[in-house]
Amino acid sequence: MPWEKSFDEDLAVENAMQVFWKKGFDSASISDLIEGTGINRGSLYNAFGGKQSLFVKALLKYDADRQAMLARLEALDDPKKAISAFFDSIVANTVADEQHKGCFMFNTALDISAHDNEVRQIVTNGVSEIEAFLRRCIEVGQARGDIRSSMDAKATAKSLLAMIVAIRVLGRGVFAEAALQEIADQAKRLIE
Amino acid sequence: MPWEKSFDEDLAVENAMQVFWKKGFDSASISDLIEGTGINRGSLYNAFGGKQSLFVKALLKYDADRQAMLARLEALDDPKKAISAFFDSIVANTVADEQHKGCFMFNTALDISAHDNEVRQIVTNGVSEIEAFLRRCIEVGQARGDIRSSMDAKATAKSLLAMIVAIRVLGRGVFAEAALQEIADQAKRLIE
Repeated sequence: MPWEKSFDEDLAVENAMQVFWKKGFDSASISDLIEGTGINRGSLYNAFGGKQSLFVKALLKYDADRQAMLARLEALDDPKKAISAFFDSIVANTVADEQHKGCFMFNTALDISAHDNEVRQIVTNGVSEIEAFLRRCIEVGQARGDIRSSMDAKATAKSLLAMIVAIRVLGRGVFAEAALQEIADQAKRLIE
Repeated sequence: MPWEKSFDEDLAVENAMQVFWKKGFDSASISDLIEGTGINRGSLYNAFGGKQSLFVKALLKYDADRQAMLARLEALDDPKKAISAFFDSIVANTVADEQHKGCFMFNTALDISAHDNEVRQIVTNGVSEIEAFLRRCIEVGQARGDIRSSMDAKATAKSLLAMIVAIRVLGRGVFAEAALQEIADQAKRLIE
């Protein structure tokens, strides 16, 4: 009889994601991952091949959640509202997280030298997709006359991305809610 | 005869700063610090009391360098040029660093939950001082007629700060020079 998994792999990846997100790749030990997933060492290695490949799976899971979130915002079919809702949700999520974990993807970006090309590519694609989403919102808003057409969509998208990064980084404990909301409000003013 | 230091304490702090900056607090081992400073374990503990207090000294050294840099920019007595030079130097320093260490202070901000109140205070003060510098530049520029007076100085200072954070975070390996320069150029356009 072949080896069979006795656990839910998706749930294990979700739990491992929480461990890596909270502690970072380097500081997350195998013991932390065993405790966080409730799966023993042998099964973890059998199923995922090791810490590095489990990290990749966790990051891909986070990335898929992010993609789904952007798809929901785009489905609002109201570009200005989508950007506004995006910023409000980022501030709300940042403030609601008592562990101040920030954004798993940006945390990984700050620690990118510890990772291989596969991880670098996931992070680079994720960041590019957020930027592309923002640019699409601005361009559609301009086409509909909701956003002034004199605006440089590409440059403004990059500024908005910068503000998201800043909210997530400074929201880890340096800035309180009011200061984070101020950055978000300023972002919304950029597309007024 | 009392115990005497056989090494240059400032140089040791500078070298320890490089180790913490590159590796982060958690991942920097005592062995890394011994190797980086060239000082043996006993002397390190005698002089600095341990890893945590050496980290505080290293962060304060970084912070003092940052203060000196802002003072030089302010001494230009040309607010628009000061902001512009600030952004260009951040991009240049980010690109020149082959180790992609980013900004020691923002790296620490991302990892703030691992630290105590003293570290949190140093980082919060440092970030606030950059923001205050940017706001002073905008306000003086407005008073001199170099920057339009309709601009909200406080909110714009926060946006510029956000862009600095983003350049430092994304510059750790996610964005190449052109994309970082684009954020800097967009920052300069904000105060046109």
